[in-house]
Amino acid sequence: MAGSSIGTILKLTTWGESHGAGIGVVVDGCPAGLPLTEADVQNYLDRRRPGQSRYTTQRSEADQAEILSGVYEGMTTGTPISILVRNTDQHSKDYSKLKDLYRPGHADFGYDMKYGIRDHRGGGRSSGRETIGRVAGGAIAAKLLAELGITVTAYTKSIGPVFAETFDSAEISRNPLCMPDASAAEMAASYLEGCMEHHDSAGGVIECVVSGMPAGAGDPVFEKLDANLAKAIMSIGAVKAVEIGDGFLAAAAAGSENNDPFIPAPADSETDKPRITKSSNHAGGILGGISDGSDIIVRAAVKPTPSIAQPQKTVTRDGRAVGLEITGRHDPVIVPRAVVVVECMTALTIADALLTGMSAKLSSVKTIWGN
Amino acid sequence: MAGSSIGTILKLTTWGESHGAGIGVVVDGCPAGLPLTEADVQNYLDRRRPGQSRYTTQRSEADQAEILSGVYEGMTTGTPISILVRNTDQHSKDYSKLKDLYRPGHADFGYDMKYGIRDHRGGGRSSGRETIGRVAGGAIAAKLLAELGITVTAYTKSIGPVFAETFDSAEISRNPLCMPDASAAEMAASYLEGCMEHHDSAGGVIECVVSGMPAGAGDPVFEKLDANLAKAIMSIGAVKAVEIGDGFLAAAAAGSENNDPFIPAPADSETDKPRITKSSNHAGGILGGISDGSDIIVRAAVKPTPSIAQPQKTVTRDGRAVGLEITGRHDPVIVPRAVVVVECMTALTIADALLTGMSAKLSSVKTIWGN
Amino acid sequence: MAGSSIGTILKLTTWGESHGAGIGVVVDGCPAGLPLTEADVQNYLDRRRPGQSRYTTQRSEADQAEILSGVYEGMTTGTPISILVRNTDQHSKDYSKLKDLYRPGHADFGYDMKYGIRDHRGGGRSSGRETIGRVAGGAIAAKLLAELGITVTAYTKSIGPVFAETFDSAEISRNPLCMPDASAAEMAASYLEGCMEHHDSAGGVIECVVSGMPAGAGDPVFEKLDANLAKAIMSIGAVKAVEIGDGFLAAAAAGSENNDPFIPAPADSETDKPRITKSSNHAGGILGGISDGSDIIVRAAVKPTPSIAQPQKTVTRDGRAVGLEITGRHDPVIVPRAVVVVECMTALTIADALLTGMSAKLSSVKTIWGN
Amino acid sequence: MAGSSIGTILKLTTWGESHGAGIGVVVDGCPAGLPLTEADVQNYLDRRRPGQSRYTTQRSEADQAEILSGVYEGMTTGTPISILVRNTDQHSKDYSKLKDLYRPGHADFGYDMKYGIRDHRGGGRSSGRETIGRVAGGAIAAKLLAELGITVTAYTKSIGPVFAETFDSAEISRNPLCMPDASAAEMAASYLEGCMEHHDSAGGVIECVVSGMPAGAGDPVFEKLDANLAKAIMSIGAVKAVEIGDGFLAAAAAGSENNDPFIPAPADSETDKPRITKSSNHAGGILGGISDGSDIIVRAAVKPTPSIAQPQKTVTRDGRAVGLEITGRHDPVIVPRAVVVVECMTALTIADALLTGMSAKLSSVKTIWGN
Repeated sequence: MAGSSIGTILKLTTWGESHGAGIGVVVDGCPAGLPLTEADVQNYLDRRRPGQSRYTTQRSEADQAEILSGVYEGMTTGTPISILVRNTDQHSKDYSKLKDLYRPGHADFGYDMKYGIRDHRGGGRSSGRETIGRVAGGAIAAKLLAELGITVTAYTKSIGPVFAETFDSAEISRNPLCMPDASAAEMAASYLEGCMEHHDSAGGVIECVVSGMPAGAGDPVFEKLDANLAKAIMSIGAVKAVEIGDGFLAAAAAGSENNDPFIPAPADSETDKPRITKSSNHAGGILGGISDGSDIIVRAAVKPTPSIAQPQKTVTRDGRAVGLEITGRHDPVIVPRAVVVVECMTALTIADALLTGMSAKLSSVKTIWGN
Repeated sequence: MAGSSIGTILKLTTWGESHGAGIGVVVDGCPAGLPLTEADVQNYLDRRRPGQSRYTTQRSEADQAEILSGVYEGMTTGTPISILVRNTDQHSKDYSKLKDLYRPGHADFGYDMKYGIRDHRGGGRSSGRETIGRVAGGAIAAKLLAELGITVTAYTKSIGPVFAETFDSAEISRNPLCMPDASAAEMAASYLEGCMEHHDSAGGVIECVVSGMPAGAGDPVFEKLDANLAKAIMSIGAVKAVEIGDGFLAAAAAGSENNDPFIPAPADSETDKPRITKSSNHAGGILGGISDGSDIIVRAAVKPTPSIAQPQKTVTRDGRAVGLEITGRHDPVIVPRAVVVVECMTALTIADALLTGMSAKLSSVKTIWGN
Repeated sequence: MAGSSIGTILKLTTWGESHGAGIGVVVDGCPAGLPLTEADVQNYLDRRRPGQSRYTTQRSEADQAEILSGVYEGMTTGTPISILVRNTDQHSKDYSKLKDLYRPGHADFGYDMKYGIRDHRGGGRSSGRETIGRVAGGAIAAKLLAELGITVTAYTKSIGPVFAETFDSAEISRNPLCMPDASAAEMAASYLEGCMEHHDSAGGVIECVVSGMPAGAGDPVFEKLDANLAKAIMSIGAVKAVEIGDGFLAAAAAGSENNDPFIPAPADSETDKPRITKSSNHAGGILGGISDGSDIIVRAAVKPTPSIAQPQKTVTRDGRAVGLEITGRHDPVIVPRAVVVVECMTALTIADALLTGMSAKLSSVKTIWGN
Repeated sequence: MAGSSIGTILKLTTWGESHGAGIGVVVDGCPAGLPLTEADVQNYLDRRRPGQSRYTTQRSEADQAEILSGVYEGMTTGTPISILVRNTDQHSKDYSKLKDLYRPGHADFGYDMKYGIRDHRGGGRSSGRETIGRVAGGAIAAKLLAELGITVTAYTKSIGPVFAETFDSAEISRNPLCMPDASAAEMAASYLEGCMEHHDSAGGVIECVVSGMPAGAGDPVFEKLDANLAKAIMSIGAVKAVEIGDGFLAAAAAGSENNDPFIPAPADSETDKPRITKSSNHAGGILGGISDGSDIIVRAAVKPTPSIAQPQKTVTRDGRAVGLEITGRHDPVIVPRAVVVVECMTALTIADALLTGMSAKLSSVKTIWGN
């Protein structure tokens, strides 16, 4: 099936395996007139690049983005933006002994069952490198949202059992774990050292906040904004759960606690129009699938890295039980590198909801197309 | 936007408000040759019908399903199946005082921001009655899955702070809370009595298990089976979180715990072909977006009913702060009625993944179309 | 496959067979705030109703449209509009002898090959009654376009060998053949009398003109406005060809004849902005897939009614050669009844292109979503 | 809008402008296990390459295809196939004087109206080079169809007023105009010489035949096989009309002439199953949107090249009337180069219909997914 595209009006199509010629993305449906440079895209790609700390693999690829189309004289033209990142470091490992084995926690077995054939080198489409296309696309979506005063910020909420308890946005980019709490980041680092000593790995939780969001984006039924966020974020490899607002905590709360009262907000300074806000945000900015103007809050649970150096049990293609030892260096945790991916999938989803929602009112249609 | 459809090959389109003429669904893409009667659909609708216990509203509608097309002599013909349920009990309440108010926890405000106009009676498309179309469609999907030996079963995992600790499948339909644990159901009932005394409400968690699932369904990137499950289930009103397998627990686990070892399974008795299974199922039956042949396990967090009889604060359309008292009877918990909805959205998603995945191998294409 | 829907933002889903309980349509994505009544829809349905002249069958159904959802107090709410037309006259014929035969010119054989099962009564989904959903949806699209000053008008260009040579728009609704040329209509009527005498049938050409069209609608590549028109119109049963502008004549013309010169138009009286038009319109209002502001001109070739009373040769399901005589009354020509269907599919396509094209410019996105 | 993709299961996404870094395509949803090499793709690209005769421009680009993903050890893996063709000859022309002019017969004006910005060099997305992605994708579809015994062959039916009267398939690749009639090709060549002398251009008609087609592909309503062919082919730049089978001739024919009698065919030699065919093929292999097993016949009308060297009238962006002389060499006819494009769009459409139609029968679903 054609499962490599996502979005209705702003549509992302990714392609590429970790061990093919390259990885890329086509971003279709971006409005014309948005200033865009390769540096805009590169800044985001650099945030997901390996080799940045002792908790991420040392693959030395530069992941240099080349914009092949859709931008003219520094401005989007409304036509598809194709971005290519060549694979340059793909021969460093010997994958031959994985050819007929199914690694636990990986998609190897499912691929063979589905396709009957599999590029076993580096996980094929399930490689972490597949996220390059998502991040390149998300960089464009973030630029588009910035034009509307909307910002999207993701960070590490927890690593293993260690949770960020305080929030300092400046701290996110200061520690290699992308935690907004410096002391939690230190504790998490210690925890990871322990994992590495035991040839084990850790997971964690990523939180993402969308600020400056207008009310009225998203749809009431299947294209609910939270439903599309859930799909976009669950489609990131290793994500096993998604929450909006209070998420699972809401399931245990009383209605009187969970309901967010609406209250008057200061009138718009320019138009003097009355405005409405909420005095709390248990809902995470979305009610009935539609944004309510509060910050949108999403959380993703990321499982521990499945490639661990401990001996593991598995079977071969022909069903024989064997032992498996995965050699080479693997990240003890993928959470920090997934932070920007969550941010990008969120940005893409929000941007698509805004673009597809432009014709909700007849008056808007007349504004754009009427005389 | 056209947000009332879901699915690629098996496509569901729902329509209708709680206070219009009726509610309905068009199920397109169902294979021809599936035995189907109105009773099949009615059985599922009866499971979501209100008026079944003291925890659900006493709306006396029969919710009688009429199949208008797509079935001939008790068999699906491959053409769209249209199902209509007339609204018959819609005049029982006076909604006029809600016309210019935004109820906390409801989508009222978002609708006004999005559309500039709103049918304020009973929540419009955000009414619980919208799920009638989902359940009617899910009944068809479940019948289709049964032909392939696949069963989908949902139940209440928790109500407020009370969790089911044991599992007896027969118990699910025996207690009005759909819990697989009789003593937990009793405790949950007491908890709900307390909520009702305080004019408050409760949420809970629904779990859904897919058994008999073949490996190889779902897609590697954006159409991951878990991503589509997340969307389908998050698109149910009041759902605030979705987990696959261990979900958030996976985020705190070590890789060595979370990886499920592959092991040989008894060979197929007919073909003597070797088979492969897993000795644990932390992954919840999906790896890299593709089913691995283990049971698929999904959980949904449902928020407490937002309509509570306590006085609440809110604002009017023109931004004036007012007090609000919601009268009439409202369910103190919607979890038991949402159980069948989660089951149906899961069944629809699984069925669509199987139908869209039929052409993954060239050999399958040749089997169907070759000479 | 789920082939019963069309459109990206304004999405039409039709369902129903001629001999089931009814026929219907769900129109999703219509902007909120459009005045709409059942009479608006009924007016269009009445134009396609049989029993209007001696050239159309005398099926006495009223085809009464009921709007089941999406309209509140005479205004669309932005939610799906479901329209139902009950079948009331479906028992008048005996179809049993067609059960195992494949009628020439009909889809019977293809249905059996595709689905292995078939509702043989009245052609199933290939019945002319399937167009009821298209026309009901088109009535809504036409109302939406009228709000933007756009009108869509279709008429019969030819019946068999008789072509309309003059154009008087008032004449279209005056003669039962919907020709804009009274004397051609008379000649065509004589021609049809001849067909009926010989138990034969005729086809014809329908032309459709869209006036008041703004420039800039449609997309450059696969979603070209003319490509979508071609699909929408070719999807009408019995249509075998579609032309835009000069169509096949363009293939024989020289470039110097076929190119339409751009010329200045009178400036906008309100804004004094310069405007641009063309001094000819061989292109039919679309260049490179995008509307150029001239009238859009589409033509459809409709084949002769395949149900003729003459003895014909065919085979049975099990491949036996047999003779076939189709009894009962059948229209000697379906062109006049297809006129409104062509008009409606055109209106739907144009409306969808306008709604999906609202976000082409960043400045438009800022106008709708910015502060 | 995201208009750069086409197809439901086999999905093509093209990107690139004639004067950007390159042109490319992502083919998603191709079944795994299809042998595929860059040479397969290159063979098709070479057929559309310019510089092959005096009737096509001398742009010297090699149009070398690089497969970047989706193929492993010479076999498709089921993951997206990305193909890149670098632009290498893009600086040869000076387009600056076209910057603020609207060329007659081109999409320039529509682009400016739609996007407010335009890459004026070489037509942007409306360049003939956009078809590179279509042809690369079509090469893959053709390989897939060949595995099912289906072949797709297009050729020039007419150039200006000169029609091919005889059919010799070997002749198609022998003359530079791709006509199956050598003497017509000679006459057409003379006709083109005349056009060139007068600085004028010609159009023509392309016919395409699909042989070996199984019955039962395509859908009954909006996804009719002919509707999708019409869209796919009308989406090729310069195509102004599409016919299936007798097309416009059917509109003038009598029903008794146009109906194709079904007749018994020789039983399948292996299975001894009775087979059914038709004794004529006015329908062009499609009835009611579903293939009937006869050859599918499609025709496309291609307009004359709009870039002609004669002086023309047009206007500037700000609405001033000016004269225009297009310099440089332009093809006097684009029909021969469009032949392979029509063939490829047909192949892609047929292949997608086969893949999406695999689940039409419950029995097929059980064959693929049952135990």
